[in-house]
Amino acid sequence: MREWESNVRKVVPYVPGEQPKDQRAIKLNTNENPYPPSPMVEEALRELAAEPMRRYPDSAAQQLVDAIAKEQGVKPEQIFVGVGSDDVLALAFLTFFNSGKPILFPDITYSFYDVWADLFRIPYECPPLNDRFEIVKEDYYRENGGVIFPNPNAPTGVLMPLAEVEAIIAHNRKVIVIVDEAYIDFGGSSAVSLLEKYDNLLVVQTFSKSRSMAGMRIGYAVGNADLIRCLNDVKYSFNSYSMNQTAITLGTAAALDHTYFEKTRQKIIATRERTKKEMAALGFRFADSQANFLFVTHESAQAGELLEALKEAGIYVRYFKRPRIENYLRITIGTDEEMDELLAFLRKYLKR
Amino acid sequence: MREWESNVRKVVPYVPGEQPKDQRAIKLNTNENPYPPSPMVEEALRELAAEPMRRYPDSAAQQLVDAIAKEQGVKPEQIFVGVGSDDVLALAFLTFFNSGKPILFPDITYSFYDVWADLFRIPYECPPLNDRFEIVKEDYYRENGGVIFPNPNAPTGVLMPLAEVEAIIAHNRKVIVIVDEAYIDFGGSSAVSLLEKYDNLLVVQTFSKSRSMAGMRIGYAVGNADLIRCLNDVKYSFNSYSMNQTAITLGTAAALDHTYFEKTRQKIIATRERTKKEMAALGFRFADSQANFLFVTHESAQAGELLEALKEAGIYVRYFKRPRIENYLRITIGTDEEMDELLAFLRKYLKR
Repeated sequence: MREWESNVRKVVPYVPGEQPKDQRAIKLNTNENPYPPSPMVEEALRELAAEPMRRYPDSAAQQLVDAIAKEQGVKPEQIFVGVGSDDVLALAFLTFFNSGKPILFPDITYSFYDVWADLFRIPYECPPLNDRFEIVKEDYYRENGGVIFPNPNAPTGVLMPLAEVEAIIAHNRKVIVIVDEAYIDFGGSSAVSLLEKYDNLLVVQTFSKSRSMAGMRIGYAVGNADLIRCLNDVKYSFNSYSMNQTAITLGTAAALDHTYFEKTRQKIIATRERTKKEMAALGFRFADSQANFLFVTHESAQAGELLEALKEAGIYVRYFKRPRIENYLRITIGTDEEMDELLAFLRKYLKR
Repeated sequence: MREWESNVRKVVPYVPGEQPKDQRAIKLNTNENPYPPSPMVEEALRELAAEPMRRYPDSAAQQLVDAIAKEQGVKPEQIFVGVGSDDVLALAFLTFFNSGKPILFPDITYSFYDVWADLFRIPYECPPLNDRFEIVKEDYYRENGGVIFPNPNAPTGVLMPLAEVEAIIAHNRKVIVIVDEAYIDFGGSSAVSLLEKYDNLLVVQTFSKSRSMAGMRIGYAVGNADLIRCLNDVKYSFNSYSMNQTAITLGTAAALDHTYFEKTRQKIIATRERTKKEMAALGFRFADSQANFLFVTHESAQAGELLEALKEAGIYVRYFKRPRIENYLRITIGTDEEMDELLAFLRKYLKR
């Protein structure tokens, strides 16, 4: 080993979902939105010019911050934007989880939490979900260095009622509680409504799912102005200009089209509810997802084999080789047509 | 103080150069390129569509990596891309500077180095530049946890001959030496040519200066494939999808237009050399900058006062309130017309 290698930070990186090269593939593996971004994004794109790109972007991304604040009904100083919610969450870990005590997050949850904790050498403990894949709120009442959980949880899709979310926040006034709401627009009630009561709450959302903008990398946190200032201080110490000009302009257009957002998220919810009925009829079992995906298992179909058979047929879904969920598949809700193709394949597959 | 505040990471953030709202301002304060990006960028922009933005970008940014590798004459696995060179450098600090020993960088240099070191709690020592603002290579031969310096240095513009760069790398085979070449295209010889000899060398460059793309946030590192793999592991542990689709597409177009790059950088070099003569005639003193800026001082004009007078006249330059350089101004090389306006103002100002 070369000597410099001993000083390299060793990490086991997160492995993102596969992006198939085949454009005809049905991609139900990364919880992308099946509908294009708002037509206002296309319009804003047409008005972009190359010349201004020679200049640095606005480091405060003020236009985008203002648009998100308006949509969320909060003040601009309560909004922090980042390069996808992963950037926002990573910076929040670095900013707020420095007590030396273990932070808490569920055993089955977004696979990036333990990666960030390892990267920043933050100790952590993972209270197990119960058998219905629910977060048990009392598990988060013990001494800790911070709390984070997604609501709805990923990859289970299970939504925690807002009263239980509040109970966890109220029991943890000495630390920061991060509620990761990547999927909240598909059925849940946002904890943003609790911000006036709790100064230890940070709510994180994203443009990647309900806003159809995964390709532009835009995420944000909503919190009290003091928390947001702390996050900005760390962000300005890492990379002052993280949001490029196109992300700021196109994200602003997406944030301002509330009507389109409402229409597409309702379509996805309707498709999800119909898909639930058809999947249940095929013998799949799953928790009652309030996200844009289903997390399913089947008595007579082994998940790993089904994953491969689906891939063979050009249908990509997500599989996590982890304890307790090794016989589950996570399936993104696509268009009605895409779900019909999936269901047709499953019907044939299960009749073999 | 609220209890959670005790666990917040305290930092003194970097303060970026002012972005004046007045569009008629002459902006010579952030070392932006006065010329627009390559016409190929405008063309690529016209071909962008909003629909694909619903999908995640290619997390490897392969198209952009390949284009940079081609331009640099190295293999794609020797290129790491990030959200501006600040992102690349911050991740490199996090990845490579973990020995516990102090890292070394000059006392007068890019103001982000100590900010990153503080953020990641990396100890550091800052050997002083000599009186001609040169890095003294022997200062970097002592035991350390890593070395970083810009070449040409910022904000001085002073270029270190490649043989001296090599001497520092050769004396530090146990640690990683990062050569930050943000300004190398304006006159220096890149350390990329040393990569075959030294596996402990990482060269960092950017699209923000010589490629006219500051607004798109694209930076990169060139190194041996093992170093790049280490950087990618940390990047994938922080934010897998940091480069958005527009940055990948437009950056690729910029990287491939070598002719335009050559033409605009030669124009800037010519304007710089002419400006040097005129500034010297006005009694300004400055080191022989090989960057796209001059770092100047004047016996009879106090820098802070001149800064304000220039701002009053709509001309923005950069001032650093730091020991040894508090009577200096950093002036970006703009177009010939912009430099003429600056020079006309200075002539009048000095005659008062």
